Amino acid sequence: MDPEEFRRAGHAVVDWIADYWATLGQRPVTSQDPPGTVAAALPAGPTAHGEPVSALLADLDALVAPRLTHWQHPGFFGYFPANTSGPSVLGDLVSSGLGVQGMLWASAPACTELETVMLDWLAGLLGLPERFRSTGSGGGVIQDSASSATLVATLAALHRASGGRWREVGVDRRYRAYTSTEGHSSIEKAARIAGLGRDGVRVVAVDPGTLAMDPDALRTAIRADLAAGDVPAIVVATIGTTSTTAVDPVPQIGAICAEYGVWLHVDAAYAGAAAVCPELRWSHAGLEHADSYCFDPHKWLLTGFDCDAFWVADSADLVAALTVLPEFLRNAASDSGAVVDYRDWQVPLGRRFRALKLWFVLRWYGVEGLRAHVRSHVALADRFAARVRADDRFVLAAPHPFSLVCFRLAAGDEASAGLLEKVNATGRVFLTHTRVAGRFTLRLAIGSPLTTQAHVDDAWELIASAAG
Amino acid sequence: MDPEEFRRAGHAVVDWIADYWATLGQRPVTSQDPPGTVAAALPAGPTAHGEPVSALLADLDALVAPRLTHWQHPGFFGYFPANTSGPSVLGDLVSSGLGVQGMLWASAPACTELETVMLDWLAGLLGLPERFRSTGSGGGVIQDSASSATLVATLAALHRASGGRWREVGVDRRYRAYTSTEGHSSIEKAARIAGLGRDGVRVVAVDPGTLAMDPDALRTAIRADLAAGDVPAIVVATIGTTSTTAVDPVPQIGAICAEYGVWLHVDAAYAGAAAVCPELRWSHAGLEHADSYCFDPHKWLLTGFDCDAFWVADSADLVAALTVLPEFLRNAASDSGAVVDYRDWQVPLGRRFRALKLWFVLRWYGVEGLRAHVRSHVALADRFAARVRADDRFVLAAPHPFSLVCFRLAAGDEASAGLLEKVNATGRVFLTHTRVAGRFTLRLAIGSPLTTQAHVDDAWELIASAAG
Repeated sequence: MDPEEFRRAGHAVVDWIADYWATLGQRPVTSQDPPGTVAAALPAGPTAHGEPVSALLADLDALVAPRLTHWQHPGFFGYFPANTSGPSVLGDLVSSGLGVQGMLWASAPACTELETVMLDWLAGLLGLPERFRSTGSGGGVIQDSASSATLVATLAALHRASGGRWREVGVDRRYRAYTSTEGHSSIEKAARIAGLGRDGVRVVAVDPGTLAMDPDALRTAIRADLAAGDVPAIVVATIGTTSTTAVDPVPQIGAICAEYGVWLHVDAAYAGAAAVCPELRWSHAGLEHADSYCFDPHKWLLTGFDCDAFWVADSADLVAALTVLPEFLRNAASDSGAVVDYRDWQVPLGRRFRALKLWFVLRWYGVEGLRAHVRSHVALADRFAARVRADDRFVLAAPHPFSLVCFRLAAGDEASAGLLEKVNATGRVFLTHTRVAGRFTLRLAIGSPLTTQAHVDDAWELIASAAG
Repeated sequence: MDPEEFRRAGHAVVDWIADYWATLGQRPVTSQDPPGTVAAALPAGPTAHGEPVSALLADLDALVAPRLTHWQHPGFFGYFPANTSGPSVLGDLVSSGLGVQGMLWASAPACTELETVMLDWLAGLLGLPERFRSTGSGGGVIQDSASSATLVATLAALHRASGGRWREVGVDRRYRAYTSTEGHSSIEKAARIAGLGRDGVRVVAVDPGTLAMDPDALRTAIRADLAAGDVPAIVVATIGTTSTTAVDPVPQIGAICAEYGVWLHVDAAYAGAAAVCPELRWSHAGLEHADSYCFDPHKWLLTGFDCDAFWVADSADLVAALTVLPEFLRNAASDSGAVVDYRDWQVPLGRRFRALKLWFVLRWYGVEGLRAHVRSHVALADRFAARVRADDRFVLAAPHPFSLVCFRLAAGDEASAGLLEKVNATGRVFLTHTRVAGRFTLRLAIGSPLTTQAHVDDAWELIASAAG
């Protein structure tokens, strides 16, 4: 495809996306087709000779778009949002078009340097502690997801806990990782990948009211492990748990980690974006104790997946844990020690130029634009929660400090599960669920840039009337 | 950014990329600016209020493009190629625009089903064994990179080698991984991440002529470990090593793995694409013995990073190794067992709709288009190698079965390193190096779709004249 063919086809694809966005609100949020519908409609292989882009766009309309869960739909309230935006899509398009590999500084200098600066910009935007800026021994990097951030934090923590032996000898002791009962499943997954096993994860109790980690229970767990000869390696605290957006008490947890010399990783995958608003930075208290921290611009900061922003206070353990230097990657810039090679900050070797989409988003919206985005969703969540609170049939299941509201029917689990099924079957909204203190709980997560007050009010009307 | 603003800005960005491609051949392949040039030119943070896309495009021209290593440049012969193409960029643009998350079948049904079908298409295109198709107990999935493929293969292998205990108890024995001295650095990295340590990796000798793994040395290493009470868990064989594209003897290695019950992973990251041509499938002999296999369409099959295609013969160990099911991800489709949830086939939870770019590439080029692409590069490599062979000053350092030619100056390492520096300083070409049997060796890897015979001939003229 030569540049002129690309220009023509590219305009057509841009138009297809613009039309998709313009009509998104009229589509059902989810597909009702059974498993296998798409696969059954596809041929057994590609044709011998090529087909035009127009044939692909026709099949996008006929086959693909009707069988999606539309995450950007104004009625999408499921999971956590994975919102994107026009500027993000365009920044990522430039990345695809350049097709450079940022594994080493030398393999694409601007890719590395723009990423370092964007992570510094984000650190400033969120008011993160100075220690995470690239000007000292720390700095930031883009990971694909908070799962991978937790994994690399775990590996750096193991290396540190072993006194530097781990990378040679591996897991030769009973290292332990700690998180609360509300911590994300990726914490257990990271511990398993790192060779600690599920047994290596200590699940710490939470305060039953706030659902935040109980620091006394953490201290007790660490002491018990030390007494048994185990090695406490990492605590993962959460700002904004996936189930209900609970906020762990990082100041107290940080003090315990400091006392026992345990790595503290703070996972703010969803709620980190809230810190762009000064009035929501209370949620990030105590972060100066953290060895590492991450949040996902791809969740609630208008940047398309994949874009997890991950910082370390000191990159030495991370790089020591992950670096392997074969001859074919050696180069003068790396040998000089004057540059950062981000391949040593992550699991894969290769890396896309993902800083571009952040650059596009941060510049196109500006600081106030991003704050307005977060504030509008928090206000919509407040509004929805007020409706729930005012209706005797409903119970608010947890605090709602950000843009997620958790609620259930007073009539019990069966009624709540039935309600979820009923409202999702309309195709007008999509909600998911969790369990809070064992009870089936609906989650309404506001995050699509297209979601307005009218959509949230419609969702409430639909839910209230379906509740019977 | 509303759909109409996106349409206008999107056309401008497409035009910027088309113009970039049209002028690529006139740019220096690499930047000569020192570290810090880009960072120093950027402001301390985003503006309070947004800026237009035109400002971003202007800064792409002024700041970013001049400080890149241009991987798509016709004179880029470094590392392995990471070639992309118009159809790939457009498929990825659709993925960005849809902004769906394929972590579960239910979270975006078409994302999962198109991926399954595309991996079946690719398996057919490469003539892979039936056991890797989704119709049986195996199947394929897209990973970000071959590094991650090796990691998840290692985890599945550990789970199997432990008799299913690993995911509970972790690394509680001395598990061992095997690869050759020419195996990729990501194999040691995966073993380290998995908690085996560098000591857990057995580096097996190669035949000094072919640089392929010596099966007798592998057998000896496995026997020694068994005698010491260690647990052989995984062998990683390579089709097309990074240093010189050597091909390990997979039939013999597979027989040894079968005899000792060791997981066989075959890494064909670069050379897998060659198997689209029937005349190059000799390189894939013995693959019916493999438990897992991967190659990177993002290296030599016109698909932009990230797109590693990874297959397992039986997905049960992989899923058992990686699955964690929190309440908030439970859904009727997953509970039914009728669908694949790819989150359990990879490290991260979230996932982009990466099958779209494959679909666009496979359909736009067609089978014959892809074969012509690979064949033209193999022919160009043959042509370049013939020039090297015919010149007494040069030595071909290794066989060149695909599109990489390794060569050095007979005058010695210092002369060879000097030659590399000299030709790269011209900005007309970019080559990287390796060491073969300890000797400094230049690598000329052909992969850019823009590279024609004229570019390869120019590269030779430049090299030959710089050799003095």
